[in-house]
Formats: sequence, C-alpha cells, structure tokens
Amino acid sequence: MKNQSQFTPVKSHGAEDAILDRIRASAQQSRNATNGLLVGVGDDAAIFRATHGCDEIVTCDWFLEGTHFLRDKHPADSIGWKCLARAASDVAAMGGVPRCFLLSLALPSTHLGPWLDDFLRGLRRASQRFKCVLAGGDTTWGEKVLVSVTVLGEVRPGRALLRSNAQPGEIIFVSGRLGEAELGLCLLRLQKRKVSRGDPLLAKHLYPEPRLALGRWLAENRLASAMMDLSDGVSTDLPRLCEASRVGAAIDSAKIPAVRLPERGRTSSENALALALHGGDDYELLFTVPRSKANRIPRSFHGIPLSKIGEITKRRTLLLIDQSGRKMLLPNRGWDPFRQET
Amino acid sequence: MKNQSQFTPVKSHGAEDAILDRIRASAQQSRNATNGLLVGVGDDAAIFRATHGCDEIVTCDWFLEGTHFLRDKHPADSIGWKCLARAASDVAAMGGVPRCFLLSLALPSTHLGPWLDDFLRGLRRASQRFKCVLAGGDTTWGEKVLVSVTVLGEVRPGRALLRSNAQPGEIIFVSGRLGEAELGLCLLRLQKRKVSRGDPLLAKHLYPEPRLALGRWLAENRLASAMMDLSDGVSTDLPRLCEASRVGAAIDSAKIPAVRLPERGRTSSENALALALHGGDDYELLFTVPRSKANRIPRSFHGIPLSKIGEITKRRTLLLIDQSGRKMLLPNRGWDPFRQET
Repeated sequence: MKNQSQFTPVKSHGAEDAILDRIRASAQQSRNATNGLLVGVGDDAAIFRATHGCDEIVTCDWFLEGTHFLRDKHPADSIGWKCLARAASDVAAMGGVPRCFLLSLALPSTHLGPWLDDFLRGLRRASQRFKCVLAGGDTTWGEKVLVSVTVLGEVRPGRALLRSNAQPGEIIFVSGRLGEAELGLCLLRLQKRKVSRGDPLLAKHLYPEPRLALGRWLAENRLASAMMDLSDGVSTDLPRLCEASRVGAAIDSAKIPAVRLPERGRTSSENALALALHGGDDYELLFTVPRSKANRIPRSFHGIPLSKIGEITKRRTLLLIDQSGRKMLLPNRGWDPFRQET
Repeated sequence: MKNQSQFTPVKSHGAEDAILDRIRASAQQSRNATNGLLVGVGDDAAIFRATHGCDEIVTCDWFLEGTHFLRDKHPADSIGWKCLARAASDVAAMGGVPRCFLLSLALPSTHLGPWLDDFLRGLRRASQRFKCVLAGGDTTWGEKVLVSVTVLGEVRPGRALLRSNAQPGEIIFVSGRLGEAELGLCLLRLQKRKVSRGDPLLAKHLYPEPRLALGRWLAENRLASAMMDLSDGVSTDLPRLCEASRVGAAIDSAKIPAVRLPERGRTSSENALALALHGGDDYELLFTVPRSKANRIPRSFHGIPLSKIGEITKRRTLLLIDQSGRKMLLPNRGWDPFRQET
C-alpha cells in the first residue's frame, strides 16, 4: 500500500460517467433559472418543487434513429433541438408551461465525439428557448441513437385543455401552416448530403417551435374547450380529439392553411392539401372554441396565423368538404410508425 | 354520401392507437387508487397533483434489448416487472414514495401479440406491488424492444437522501445479499431455453424488489446521511457516492454480505466476493449512517439483512481490507454499458 498519496482521487471512471459529465456541463451553461429544481443531474433522481398551487404536467416522447430521424441526413444539432421540442409541444397542447426535462440517451461509440457536442448544442438552445432545464436522465450504449425525453410542466388547477372536452357546434381552429414539416422531410430525403442548419424550407422539419405562448394564452383566458398538438397529421390527430370527446367533425378543404408550394395549378393545390392533411411533425395546435368566443380568437397570434377550419358535429363521422361543397369521409392517412414498417 | 349511418363511428384506427388501448386497459385493471393522477393515459400529457407540501422525485431508466436483457432468454413478464422496478429503485434510493410512471415502449411487429400481453402482465404486477400507477407514455415501432420508464415520486421537503452528504467517520451499510442478481444472469446465459418465472436462483435477477419501505424508513427517521441504490455493483457505485460527497471509503471484504454459492472452499468465497463487489442489478440500498445513530439500524428490516461493510474516510481513496487486514485499492469493475461493447 505504498504511494497512496499518488493515487488519483476517487472518481467515477467509466465511459458512462464521462458522458454524464459532458451532459451536466452542457446543462449548467444553460441554467439561468433553477425552475423549481432542488436536485438536478447526478443523483439517483431529480427533486422538483412545483410552483405553489400548480398541478404538474408530465409527458414523454421517443425520438429514434431510423423511425423518427435518419443518421446520414439529420444534423445532430437538429436531433438535440427536436427531441425536446416534441415533448414540450405536448405541454403546449395542455396549455401549460414547461419547467424541466429528463434525457434518456443511448449512443453508439462512434457518436461520443463531435456528434454528441452538436447534439448537446441543439438541446441547450432548445432548453434555453423553452425555458425548460435539464433535471436528469439515463445514458447507455446503443447500436443506434435512441432518445426519449420526459418533460415536466405546470398548469393552474382546472385550466388544462384536454382532448375530451369538444362540444358539437364548436369551431375548429389550427395554428400555423400545415404540411411544411412534411415537405421539409421530402426535400431532406432527396438531398444527397447532410443538410445545412440554415435551409429555410427545412426549418420547420428540423427545428419545430412548440406553440407554448399560444397554448398558455388559450388556457389562461379560457378561450379553447379542447386542444391537442398536431404530431401525426390532421387526418390522424383530429379523429383522436373527436374520439376522446365522443363527437365528429366537418372540415373545409378550402380553409385548411396548407403549405405553399413553389409550382401552381390544380395538382399543386391538391399536393399542398394532402401534405396539410396527412403530413406529420407540424407541432401546431388544433383546438376547438365555443361559438360565443370565436370572435375573440385573432387572425394571428405573435405572427402565427390562426385559421378556422371547420366545426365539431354531434354525428360521429369525420367529413371533408371540398370547394364545391361536396362531402367525403376524411381518410386517415397520417403517420403511424407501425404502418411504415409493414 | 349515401349510407352515412353505416359508417363506423369515429375511431383512431392505427396500430399505434390499438397498442395504446391495450396498455390503457391493462393499466385500468390495476388502478385501485388514483395516486394524485388527474389525467392519465390518452391525452397529450398526464396531469398529476402532488400531496400537499411534498416535493417531487423524478427519474428515468433505460431497459433495452441486447444491452439490459436478451430477447431469447428473458421472459416478457420479467421485462415488464423489471423496467418499472429499476426506476422505482431510484425513488427508494432518495427515500421517497413512488406515485406514477410513464412508459416509453418501442416494439417490433412480432411482439404485438402474446409477448405484449405477458409484458403488460409483469408491468401490472409491479405497478400494483409498488403502488405506482401508469400515467402515460409513448409507443412506437422498433427493430428491437426498447423501454424507457419515468417514475414520479414524492418526498417531504428536506428528507430526501442524496449521494452527496456522506461524512468521514460514518458507517457504510448495505441491504440484502449482493451478487445474487449477477449469479442469476450467469445461470440464465447458460440455459438453453427461455427460463421459467419460478426459478428461485433467478428471481433476484428477473424480479428485483426495490427497497421502498427501507428507503422511506431511513429517510423519515433521519437515520441515514447519504444513500443510493446499487445498480452497477459496489465497486462502481460506491465511488459515485464518495465522489459526490468528496470523501473516500474503506470496506471490509469479510463483512460484505455476498451471495451464497453452492460449492465451498476458497475459490468459491473469492467468486462470491467478486460477484458481490462487481455484480450489477442488485437494487439494494447503499447508505451511510453517523456513528451516533448506527446502533439504531437493526440487523434486518422486514426480513432484509442490513450489514455494516465499512466506513467513510476523509482520504479520497477506495480501500478494500481483506480478512488478514491487508489493504488494497478497490478495483472498479462494475457494469458500464460502453465497456461491454468495446
């Protein structure tokens, strides 16, 4: 037992601990506020104290290589941003405020260098933007990049906007322009190289902005009755809202705020409508408003267009009304991960 | 638009929604108490109301095919149990009470039948046992079975037991018998067929019991100063506690409560000690107690042995003292997922 004084001090030596240290260092750079976090990264669990009197919102979202993003196409920075944006969007959809998040990250050994730095940079930007701080997580080795993010948020009791509260006769609204993210993904797939962060046509796909301020405004002012975020496309998500509320809906194809395509003509407008109805990853808000309050919804909120697209019906069908007034059933062609595979 | 009345009612049609329905149905069978859950599975997020005056504990844990379990060896029922037990163990390690959890599940299409039923059965048993209800989650397709579980728990303010509070001179305790889970894994790897649920030698590996009652008792009675759970082995986890507390430790090999091996003799006791020091997945508690309180720690708690294994030192080294009093540095040979791969 000689030379004990030369022994390096007690340290957790493994690669897993080294990665945790980098994540922790990255998080500390972004922690301006503690956001209710009493114990953060580094213990068995995090300890969080909610704002007095608030209920807590908790949600988690997968973000998996091969299923949700492509190794050779998506910049690591975008993966870091988007994994948090997706989960924060669920908090926006309840009308809440995000507070902190947990990161579950599995990585191949090839991704521990610059890839991880870029990933953490995107994650930190999102964390600062959404005012949502890293509270902890779990890191392990994986053949592919696997991410699961849990976000904790808050909402005042009774103010959360659920999917299950839509009533017949209410007006259906959406925020933003639908299908832009799906168009971005199409363009991304066509490109040979890894794309640059700055491409404006890809921005909505790579760096989606959860509609946090809008969701909170609708909830705090009791304007919406039901709300959800659009992650899998209107044609998949609207049925979910209707099923939860035990109602149906009729939407107007001419009123859908569809992505603008460079070409013009009938084919182009049909393509735009298809992208808007069935395209995933928009992270816009879909919400219903009682007729008596519909005139209190502005045409845009902080620059984001808000569009009336139809109304809730008592009859439990989903109808799409075209420009000549013809009705058809809305086909459910949005994103389903199990459908992609078969 | 004829025959509208024959249309099936609005329903979310996809495979993803069908899986969610099964998870939800399984969860409802087990929900005796709402556990503070105001909105559970089925909305954008869950809403949770903590017990008045409590802080919240939040933690997540990976459980991945190939890294944490083997497709052709581990019963689905054990995977369902263990994914929740691992995360609940982090709550035990803080001295808290688990309340609800989120399940992130990615599955191959081959696993949507009986496998998923068995998985959900194990998960439901764990949920009932730990009084921790399903609050929500995310489901998607995966080439392999991927699980991430987030548990929310509670603890009274100031009572949580952190890793960072161990002081020189304090006594180090562990619960249970160490290395049993690792031995179970060794036996499992040797077996040709999928194992049966009932094998007692495999029980600790397949169906670990997080030490929830013990953790809570130590925290509520302010007996321990620092605590963590043993997931990667004493030789990896004790350095983590020491690093967080900026102290060292000296442990006594003769006092380690090692797994009992069928054979006897010196080789056998060396093997048992190696399993106890470096074996992962024990989910026992490692905690430190001030000398003045050490006599208040019983030899067993609800049938679980509690053993003094050494003491915290000011000098920041990790020493193992053998039966003849010789000191050596404790080698860090516990589980590191990145080490397995390289």
